[in-house]
Amino acid sequence: MKRYEKLAYEIADMIKSGVLVPGERVPSVRQASKTFSVSPSTVYQAYFLLENRGLIRSRPRSGYFVCGQTKQKPPRNTPRSKSTTSTSVDVSELVFSVLGSVRDPDTVPLGSAFPSPSLFPIQRLAKSMAKATRLMDLHSLVADLPPGNQELRRQIAQRYAIAGVQAPLKELVITNGALEALNLCLQAVTSPGDHVAIESPAFYVSLQSLERLKLKAVEIPLDSSGGMDLRVLADAMKKYPIRACWVMTNFQNPMGTSMPDAKKQELVSLLSRQHIPLIEDDVYSELYFDREPPKPAKAFDQEGYVMHCGSFSKSLAPGYRVGWAAAGRFAEKVERLRLMSTLSASVPAQSAIADYLQHGGFDRHLRKLRHSLEVQQNQMRASIDRHFPNDTRVSNPSGGYFLWLELPNNVDSLELFRLALKNNISIAPGPIFSATRGFRNCIRLNYGNPWTAELDKAIEQLGALVNSL
Amino acid sequence: MKRYEKLAYEIADMIKSGVLVPGERVPSVRQASKTFSVSPSTVYQAYFLLENRGLIRSRPRSGYFVCGQTKQKPPRNTPRSKSTTSTSVDVSELVFSVLGSVRDPDTVPLGSAFPSPSLFPIQRLAKSMAKATRLMDLHSLVADLPPGNQELRRQIAQRYAIAGVQAPLKELVITNGALEALNLCLQAVTSPGDHVAIESPAFYVSLQSLERLKLKAVEIPLDSSGGMDLRVLADAMKKYPIRACWVMTNFQNPMGTSMPDAKKQELVSLLSRQHIPLIEDDVYSELYFDREPPKPAKAFDQEGYVMHCGSFSKSLAPGYRVGWAAAGRFAEKVERLRLMSTLSASVPAQSAIADYLQHGGFDRHLRKLRHSLEVQQNQMRASIDRHFPNDTRVSNPSGGYFLWLELPNNVDSLELFRLALKNNISIAPGPIFSATRGFRNCIRLNYGNPWTAELDKAIEQLGALVNSL
Repeated sequence: MKRYEKLAYEIADMIKSGVLVPGERVPSVRQASKTFSVSPSTVYQAYFLLENRGLIRSRPRSGYFVCGQTKQKPPRNTPRSKSTTSTSVDVSELVFSVLGSVRDPDTVPLGSAFPSPSLFPIQRLAKSMAKATRLMDLHSLVADLPPGNQELRRQIAQRYAIAGVQAPLKELVITNGALEALNLCLQAVTSPGDHVAIESPAFYVSLQSLERLKLKAVEIPLDSSGGMDLRVLADAMKKYPIRACWVMTNFQNPMGTSMPDAKKQELVSLLSRQHIPLIEDDVYSELYFDREPPKPAKAFDQEGYVMHCGSFSKSLAPGYRVGWAAAGRFAEKVERLRLMSTLSASVPAQSAIADYLQHGGFDRHLRKLRHSLEVQQNQMRASIDRHFPNDTRVSNPSGGYFLWLELPNNVDSLELFRLALKNNISIAPGPIFSATRGFRNCIRLNYGNPWTAELDKAIEQLGALVNSL
Repeated sequence: MKRYEKLAYEIADMIKSGVLVPGERVPSVRQASKTFSVSPSTVYQAYFLLENRGLIRSRPRSGYFVCGQTKQKPPRNTPRSKSTTSTSVDVSELVFSVLGSVRDPDTVPLGSAFPSPSLFPIQRLAKSMAKATRLMDLHSLVADLPPGNQELRRQIAQRYAIAGVQAPLKELVITNGALEALNLCLQAVTSPGDHVAIESPAFYVSLQSLERLKLKAVEIPLDSSGGMDLRVLADAMKKYPIRACWVMTNFQNPMGTSMPDAKKQELVSLLSRQHIPLIEDDVYSELYFDREPPKPAKAFDQEGYVMHCGSFSKSLAPGYRVGWAAAGRFAEKVERLRLMSTLSASVPAQSAIADYLQHGGFDRHLRKLRHSLEVQQNQMRASIDRHFPNDTRVSNPSGGYFLWLELPNNVDSLELFRLALKNNISIAPGPIFSATRGFRNCIRLNYGNPWTAELDKAIEQLGALVNSL
């Protein structure tokens, strides 16, 4: 990392930790040059980077100021009650009506679960696809079905190794996206009627998976340190025979928070002690804005109880449907379940991604993607600040592409969803993230699309609707 | 159809129905010209075609003779007992050990479930893939996920319409191969513990699906008319609360028999009367050797109880993992289950196949493929005739790429499987096709590979092993 990048991160940390607050002046170039013992040109470069990331703004003849939203506070992620209940899940009808709304290309996709495909190297991938299918070994079309493309598995294992995670080739199962990986992991370790601990709020897909497999949800609230409240989890483990725990450790969907490393380690050891598998949904980990990539809980897995699920759908190739599980001690069972349910992920898609990972410049693309998402987040947060009521609380995730908004208490997000849809705007209302239909006054907004006047207009309209409710 | 093709089919019918028996002389050209009122050159062309299909053989200065196996009889598909039982399924361990054996490229793949990829237009498909991914609409990478590629759905619906089957666009669900389609259909209409009627012998994948979903198998024997014995099925429906019936109507795997149309109609009405869904596994129907394609049971479906599942994996694009269900009244449920389990089939693979169906010459490829398979079948049957004991019974399917062999009673096919594998030959032993581990003296052989001296050698070795047991 270059000196000016390092400096930019240092200042970004000061902004994030509240040492520098929105509206405040950033040290002058001369002052910073002195304080940090770097040349003025290094400071200029760092400030340029920070301006580009949307964190500071220059005002003519006045210097640089911290951007942002003086009035925004983060949503309250402390639970209203510490007692857990076990719930049969029945959320699908609601989720499908929300998902259906996103498909119309004329709808502003603030409710979408995907970032804009325009952020991905689709043409470069097409080149890899053309090459891979042209050169494809005939035998691989049949033989690659069971274990998955060998080169792709090798590339994934390498990325794990670089991240310091033990995930040997033999525990990697290539799947039809992370969704299949998560489903197979869940099925591998549960039977109908079993209890599964999930986050509250949770990504609705985990709720649907529980519903499909006829499992009972034990909803564990997130706490202010990021991620599941482990004391509540420990209590729930005494109260219910919990068979698995499904967690998004990094940039949790929808709240955007990440678990600190020490807490990940504590979670793994808490579960492993009782031989409870941890299903780790980690599809956003490549989309971090900080200096270092976040660690998965899998990094702390000593005994193979962590089943780490990843995907290329959110970082490289939406629609290709290639994901994987590093399924620890359950790898063979997961592999067999996949053989029985879909046999294999598409062989050409696997080959294309394997070729791209080798030759396409994945890490360069990821740097660009992270930058775009961070800028877009700042733009959307600024727009929300302009158009939403003052007592709106907005999350401030350091990765991913979702904002979580806590609206004034009297706002019904399902009503807001219906009104917004009439204005051709989709949103994801809070209750789809909860088996118990909580989060009635919350919504999730997707900032995965390049910022446009149309998006700003949509936020303005949404703000007006919120005010009208 | 040209006149000589029609004549060739008429003579082929005479051979198949036993009017002309193996070893018998075919009418001379002059005689046939007179009998069928066609020119001698038409007869020559027809005989050339029949010779090419491996049905007749010319002997210098003696004329044409019917090829084939005077000593071969078809396997007995009449059941030993007419009473059915309901069985929990636990066949996977055995199946996986068999499947694992096929993956080694040095093993002669007589136990494989796939035809050779060399029979498919892989390079032409690669062209379609390159074009489709290059021109891909960005929005489709996200928006095509739920319903599947629109052009592909349209092409499939058209093929149904041409075959005289009512399967409107809205009941088509694109899946990750037929395997996912079948699994989702089964899951859509059953709950754990339910009874499902399946064929005996049945494709082991259906057994695995039942096992995975914790369903009970009611095995219904095939009868000599082709397909399930409907009287036994009717009795079983009185005896058990059967919730679904899974049937391969055409070129049943492993026996190769097809249900006559009248029987398909009877099956559909028998089940529909009691509102029992029919899951129709019809992945081989494009691989027919007769004049006309076989009809699916879906053609007789009046009330939407037939869920017809198809795939491009056996007819065009192995490894692409694109299949579908025309799921009748259960279409929405199947679609939703897919959304919850894998979200979507790979978008580039769908686009490539849609482009190929429009521009690639699918029907021309299918004609060539059918011809190759028929010739290969004759070659393998002739080889079995030379090398296996006289009392071996061999099926004579008019489509697909499997032969079913009933070996002398004392031969244990699992023992044969192990011995063959030591000789680098894989076979599919009978017991993997039965929840009750029947068909101990039967094996399934794959003739989906172009005939070679190596294959003949493998059949010779197998024959010697059978003789030694």
